Amino acid sequence: MNRGRTFIVSGPSGVGKSTVLNALLARRQNVFFSVSATTRAARAGEEDGVHYRFLDVDTFRQWIARDEFLEYAEYVGNFYGTPKRYVDAAMDQGQDVILDIEIQGAIQVKSKRPETVSIFVAPPSWSELERRLTERGTDSPEKIQKRLLRAKVEFQTAHTYNYFVINDNVENAVRELDAIMTAEHCKPQERMEIITGP
Amino acid sequence: MNRGRTFIVSGPSGVGKSTVLNALLARRQNVFFSVSATTRAARAGEEDGVHYRFLDVDTFRQWIARDEFLEYAEYVGNFYGTPKRYVDAAMDQGQDVILDIEIQGAIQVKSKRPETVSIFVAPPSWSELERRLTERGTDSPEKIQKRLLRAKVEFQTAHTYNYFVINDNVENAVRELDAIMTAEHCKPQERMEIITGP
Repeated sequence: MNRGRTFIVSGPSGVGKSTVLNALLARRQNVFFSVSATTRAARAGEEDGVHYRFLDVDTFRQWIARDEFLEYAEYVGNFYGTPKRYVDAAMDQGQDVILDIEIQGAIQVKSKRPETVSIFVAPPSWSELERRLTERGTDSPEKIQKRLLRAKVEFQTAHTYNYFVINDNVENAVRELDAIMTAEHCKPQERMEIITGP
Repeated sequence: MNRGRTFIVSGPSGVGKSTVLNALLARRQNVFFSVSATTRAARAGEEDGVHYRFLDVDTFRQWIARDEFLEYAEYVGNFYGTPKRYVDAAMDQGQDVILDIEIQGAIQVKSKRPETVSIFVAPPSWSELERRLTERGTDSPEKIQKRLLRAKVEFQTAHTYNYFVINDNVENAVRELDAIMTAEHCKPQERMEIITGP
């Protein structure tokens, strides 16, 4: 059995990343979706281990001290991070791991594990992203403009990603993500032992 | 319309490359299969432009002098080569180009055009390759041993390829080649203009 690989999937708010990832998980076998750890309190309906892994601040700090996170950040007074242990256990079992994280986290993971594959999910255009954020109806016009500006600023560093998937429609985006995962398992370092073995 | 990309597909005699490539061409749109030029005489049933592009020696030498080949070689007194013009015309029309060439040709193409994607089709094992060559029934046992030795020698340089596809069964191999072609179109340099455009 080959060890699994880790895939970072990033993209701006409103791009439709959750829809695409859910469809990908329904389509592809042997994929483990990494659940982030956080110190913030669980909201109504949130389950431990499903939406987040809820940790107290002392535990989170201990894990930081023990280098137990692939990436972490503090945001509005709470910690968020990706614990290594679940990722490594899944990869050891031959599962590919999806990390749904932002660009700052992606940079941390890539610096620790350069073999990680990073994928940026982009909107077909900025006007389409604005349309989707507006249609969602959860943000004020000011908030939408803030999100758009943030997306454009983040996009300046997006060229460091290994792949770009344009979410023009969900089926295309899922097909491309699926193809990227398959293709990455065809890299020579994943395959040499098959033919050089006994 | 995006420009097409060029994919080198190499693999040892007997690996089943032709079967896989025919199935790939049936499955995938917008793919141009490059037909080699040669100075050898056409055999019965061979059509110009389908099996080979038949050139006289003077024309072939002129094309060499004008740098009109992506790669070429002399083999048992005849020239064989990949003319640039048809490859470039297909790419300009947005077609992906498949070059079914050997490792020496692959090295030449990669040195001229490093952006070319190279894929090595490997057998699941050496014993399986021997079995397939024997089953084909076209070669003597001595010839089969020569082919196997050649395959093993060539395999020493195969780590320079970008991807490895194991032809354990045709459907798997085609799925992987298809995925590689899709994934390569998701590389940032292929996608930047979509989101940075107007």
